[in-house]
Amino acid sequence: MSSYTAPVADIRFALHDVLGVEALFQRLGLSEATADIIDAVLEEAARFSGTVLAPLNSVGDEIGSVFDKSTAAVTTPPGFKQAYDQFVEGGWTGLTAAPEFGGQGLPHTLGVPLNEMVNAANLAWGNFPLLSHGAVEALKHHGEAWQQEVFLKPLIEGRWTGTMCLTEPHCGTDLGLLKTRAEPNADGSYSITGTKIFITAGEHDLTDNIVHLVLAKLPDAPPGPKGISLFVTPKFKVARDGTVGERNALACGSIEHKMGIKASVTCVMNFDGAQGYLVGQPHKGLQAMFTMMNTARLGVGLQGIGLSERAYQNALRYSRERLQSRSLSGAKFPDKPADPIIVQPDVRRMLLTIKSLTEGSRLLALHAATLIDVAHHAQDPAERERADTLVSFLTPISKACQTEWGIENTYHALQCFGGHGYIHEHGMEQLARDARITTLYEGTTGIQALDLMGRKTAASQAAGLKLFLAEIEAFAREHEGDADLAEFIKPLRDQASEWAMLTREVLERAARDPEEIGAASYDYLFYSGYVVLAYWWARSVAAARGKDTNLATAKRETARFYYARILPRTMAHAAHIRSGAKALMALDEALFG
Amino acid sequence: MSSYTAPVADIRFALHDVLGVEALFQRLGLSEATADIIDAVLEEAARFSGTVLAPLNSVGDEIGSVFDKSTAAVTTPPGFKQAYDQFVEGGWTGLTAAPEFGGQGLPHTLGVPLNEMVNAANLAWGNFPLLSHGAVEALKHHGEAWQQEVFLKPLIEGRWTGTMCLTEPHCGTDLGLLKTRAEPNADGSYSITGTKIFITAGEHDLTDNIVHLVLAKLPDAPPGPKGISLFVTPKFKVARDGTVGERNALACGSIEHKMGIKASVTCVMNFDGAQGYLVGQPHKGLQAMFTMMNTARLGVGLQGIGLSERAYQNALRYSRERLQSRSLSGAKFPDKPADPIIVQPDVRRMLLTIKSLTEGSRLLALHAATLIDVAHHAQDPAERERADTLVSFLTPISKACQTEWGIENTYHALQCFGGHGYIHEHGMEQLARDARITTLYEGTTGIQALDLMGRKTAASQAAGLKLFLAEIEAFAREHEGDADLAEFIKPLRDQASEWAMLTREVLERAARDPEEIGAASYDYLFYSGYVVLAYWWARSVAAARGKDTNLATAKRETARFYYARILPRTMAHAAHIRSGAKALMALDEALFG
Repeated sequence: MSSYTAPVADIRFALHDVLGVEALFQRLGLSEATADIIDAVLEEAARFSGTVLAPLNSVGDEIGSVFDKSTAAVTTPPGFKQAYDQFVEGGWTGLTAAPEFGGQGLPHTLGVPLNEMVNAANLAWGNFPLLSHGAVEALKHHGEAWQQEVFLKPLIEGRWTGTMCLTEPHCGTDLGLLKTRAEPNADGSYSITGTKIFITAGEHDLTDNIVHLVLAKLPDAPPGPKGISLFVTPKFKVARDGTVGERNALACGSIEHKMGIKASVTCVMNFDGAQGYLVGQPHKGLQAMFTMMNTARLGVGLQGIGLSERAYQNALRYSRERLQSRSLSGAKFPDKPADPIIVQPDVRRMLLTIKSLTEGSRLLALHAATLIDVAHHAQDPAERERADTLVSFLTPISKACQTEWGIENTYHALQCFGGHGYIHEHGMEQLARDARITTLYEGTTGIQALDLMGRKTAASQAAGLKLFLAEIEAFAREHEGDADLAEFIKPLRDQASEWAMLTREVLERAARDPEEIGAASYDYLFYSGYVVLAYWWARSVAAARGKDTNLATAKRETARFYYARILPRTMAHAAHIRSGAKALMALDEALFG
Repeated sequence: MSSYTAPVADIRFALHDVLGVEALFQRLGLSEATADIIDAVLEEAARFSGTVLAPLNSVGDEIGSVFDKSTAAVTTPPGFKQAYDQFVEGGWTGLTAAPEFGGQGLPHTLGVPLNEMVNAANLAWGNFPLLSHGAVEALKHHGEAWQQEVFLKPLIEGRWTGTMCLTEPHCGTDLGLLKTRAEPNADGSYSITGTKIFITAGEHDLTDNIVHLVLAKLPDAPPGPKGISLFVTPKFKVARDGTVGERNALACGSIEHKMGIKASVTCVMNFDGAQGYLVGQPHKGLQAMFTMMNTARLGVGLQGIGLSERAYQNALRYSRERLQSRSLSGAKFPDKPADPIIVQPDVRRMLLTIKSLTEGSRLLALHAATLIDVAHHAQDPAERERADTLVSFLTPISKACQTEWGIENTYHALQCFGGHGYIHEHGMEQLARDARITTLYEGTTGIQALDLMGRKTAASQAAGLKLFLAEIEAFAREHEGDADLAEFIKPLRDQASEWAMLTREVLERAARDPEEIGAASYDYLFYSGYVVLAYWWARSVAAARGKDTNLATAKRETARFYYARILPRTMAHAAHIRSGAKALMALDEALFG
C-alpha cells in the first residue's frame, strides 16, 4: 500500500514565502485569513487527509462502489460514509463558501491545499464533495434568490451533494448535439426527460439528497449550443419553501466499470419527466455551465498534483530502501550489500522530474487561486478584470498540464519500483490507473489546448499571455544584475520572448488557415506550461534565499534540474508548432489504414 | 471490446519491399523461405491470431489465471488451453527452430511477425510460449548433448514450456546478490533450494511439464555476478534418457495480482532441494542468462509493437465513427449532425504519432531479426560478426523504445476515445494496463539505457553505432541528388552527425566522471531510437515509390509527419544529454524530501 503525508512545509513555502498570501488577503479585506488561521487549516487538513482518507484509498479501489440494479441504489465502500460525515462535521465543505449560506468565508486560495491533500489521500473519495463546488458556483451566479436560499445552504454544509449532468451517449465535447428535453409545467417548473452519462456521484449513500444541475433543451430552443438551458433537478423534490418532498422521476440506470477511481461512481442517469427549475436565462445554459466547468477544471488539475505528490513520496522511500547494484563511481554504502538505487543518476532523473513538476505545479495552481480571490475581492475593477483574464488564461494550462504531468509522474514513480510497481499490493499501479481519468474528464487535454489557443489566445488578442509575460518581465527586472539569479533570469527571459514570438507566428498563420489553431494547440499548451513553471522555479529560488539553508539548497538544485532537464522539452514543442498544420492535415482520411 | 486484424499488408511491405528478405534468405541458404512460404505463414498467423487468440483477450483480463493454494495449481482462463493446443498443432512453437529438434527451420525473421500478431491479439496468452524461446536458446548454446536431446524437442514442439528463474525478492537487476543455492548430488545432479519471484508461466495447466532454467550459486561460488550458475530444473523430473519421473521438489507458492496481463501467471516459485542439472560451465550462468535475455528482450519489444497496432486500429475506427463538433475550417460532412473527430488536427496528431512510431518500430524489429539470421547463417565470419555487433547494439533500443512507445501509443489511442476510453467495455484501458508491464520486465528502460550507453557503446568503442551510421550514410549516398528524397536525406544526415557527436561528447565526459554514462543513458537511448526510426521512414519512402499509389502516398505523408512532429523530440534529448550529470547528482540524497 502506498502511504501519504501532506507536504505542509512546501505548501507553506508556496503560500507565505513565494506568494505572500497573508499580505494579499489583508489587502483584499479577507482579514480573517491570518497566518495563524492559514497554518491551522493546513495542519488540520493534513491530519484529516492523512489519517482518515488515505487509509481508505486501497479499500476503495478493491471494493469499489456497488450498484444494486433492483433498487437503483449505490453503496460506497466501507468507511466512505463515516469519512464523509467527519468531513462535513469539520466544516470542510464550506471552508471557502460565503458565510450567508453557512460557509466559513475563507479565501478561495485556502481551498486549494485542502483539495490537493484530499486528492492525494483518496482521489475517488474526493470526487463526491468536488462536484458540489460546481453546482454551488452555478447557483450562486445564475440561480434565482429562492433557489440560492433552498439549495446553497445544504450543498455548502455538505448535507447534500451536487452533480453536473452534461454528457449524453452521443455527445460530450459537442453539447450542441444534446437531446435531453425540458417541457414547461403549469407551476413554473419543468419536466426533464433524457439520458445523461458519465455523471460523477450521480447516485450514492453519503447524503440524503443529490442536486443535479442538468443541461437540457426547451421546446423552442434554437439548434446547437445556443439552445441549451440549465435546470436544477434534485433526487428528492424540493419545494420553493425548501420542503423536501417525494422522490423525483430520475434514477441511476447503471454505473461504469472503469480503469481506476473505482470508488467514484460514474452513473448513467435517466430522467423520466423529472421536476426541475430553470437556472438563469432560457438558452443561456452554456454560460452557466462554463461557470461550473472552470471551477471543476482547476479542481481536476489539483488531482494531478495530489497524485504526483503521493507517487513521489513512495518512490522516494523505495529508492532509498531498495539496495541494488553499486554506484557507477564506486560504492557509496560499502557496508551494505549494495547501494540504494537513489545513487543511480537515472533514478534521480525520475525523482527530480516528479519533484520539479509537482512543486512547480503547486505554485501554478495556488497562483491561479489567488487570482480568483483578487477577481472577487479587489477594490479596483481594473485589477479584478486583470485577474479574471489571467486566471482564464491559466485555467486550461493548469488543468491539462497538471493532469498530464500527473500521469507522467505516476509513471516514473511506478518505474522506480521496477517490477514491484506493477503489483497491486504496493499501491503504485492504483495511482497510475486513477491518474488516467484526469486528462479525460472535464474536457480532454485536446479540448483544453483548443480553449487556450483559440478562445484564450486567438480570440482575445492574447490578453492573458500578455499579462503573464508582463509578470515575468517585472520579476526579471526586479532581479536584474542579481548574480545569484542570473542563471535563471536569462533563459527565462529568452523563453518568454520565444513564447511571444511563437504566439504571433501561430496567429498569423491562423489568419490564413484556421486549422493552424488546432494544429498548434497541443504543443502550444505544453510550451506554455513549461515556461510558466520555469517562472515559478526562478521565483522559488528567489523566495528561498535567506530561509532555511536546506530549503534554499533543495529549491536551487531542483530549479537547476528543471532548467537543464525539463525546460528543453520546449525545443521540441516549438519545432512541432513551427512545422504547421500541413504535416497533420495532408494525409487523406481514407489512407490512415 | 477492442478488435484486431493483423496488418499483413504492412508486414509484407516491410519484409519484401524495404528489407528484401527473399533475396537475403536465398543468399543465406535459407532457401525454403520463398515468397510463397513467407506469405502463407503471414496469412495463417493472421488467421490464428485474429480468430483464435484475439477473442480470448478480454476473457483473459476479466477472469485471469487462478491459483489454488491447496493444490498449488494454476488454472488459465477458459479457452486458453484449447488455443494453446491449436498453436502446438499448427506447429507454431517450432516455426523457426532447428529441424533436428523438431522445428520447421524457417528464418528467425519469420518468427517476428508471428510474435507481433500473437502479442497484439492476446499479450497475456503470448507470454506462455514466449518464455520457451529463452529456455531453448540457453539449452541450445550451453546445454550438454543429452540435455538438448531430452529437453529441446518437447520445448520446441510445445509439449512443454520453459521459464527463466532469475529474480529473487531482494534482487532483480543485481543478480550478484542472489541467494538460491545448488548443492551437488552423487549422481551428478544438483539440489536447488531458494525462492524465485516474478516467474512468468512458472505454473499453469497448458502442458504436462514445465522446464525451469534457474540461476543459483554453487557452494564454492565466488561472490557477486561471477558466482552464478545455470540449472535446468523441470517440474516433473526428467532422467538422462528422457524418462519423465515423479514430481520435482518445487512448487508455485502464490501468484501476483497485477495491473494488467491478468491471464499471464507471475509466480513465486519455491525450490526445496529440487533436482536440477548444470547448464554450461560452473559460475558462467550469467553468460547463459544473457543468451536467454537478449532473445526475451527483443520479444518484449514486439509486445510494444503488437499493442500499438491494436490500439491504433481501434482508435482509428472510433475517430472515424465518433461525430462531434465541426472542423475548424468548416463542416467536412455537412449532411451529418457533426464531423467525425478524425477531421480535428489534434486527433490526427495522436493517430499519426501511433502510426509513425508503430510502422517505424516494425522495421526496427524486423531489421534486428534479419541481423540474427545473418549472424547465424552468413558464410563470411566478418559478416556474421558485424551482424552480431549491430543486433547487440539495437537490442536495448528495440526493447526500450518499442515498449515505451507502446505505452505512449496506447495512451494516445485511449485518449482518442475521450471518457469512453476509461471504461472497461471498450477494451482500450486493458491495452494501456497490459502495456505497462513491458517497460519493467526483462530489464527496465533504465537498464536497457545503461546497457546501450555503457556496455554497447562506451565499452566497445561505439562499434554498433559506427555500423548503423555507415548504413545511414550508404543509404544517403545511394540517394544523393534524388530530389524526391532530399527532404528526408538532409535532416537524416544532420541527425546522424549529431548522434556521432553526442556520443563522442558523452564518452569524453565519462572518461573523467563515470556518472556521465548513467546521466546520459536514458536520453541517449531515445535519441538513438528516434534517429533509427528516421532512417527507416526515409527507406520506407524510397521503397514505396512506384508501388501502389495509396501506399506510396501514405508512407510519404507519414514520413513527413514523423520528420516534422516526432523527430524534433531529439532536440530536447540532446539538450538533456549535454547538460551532463551535474543537474542530476548535485542534490544531496537527504534533501530530496
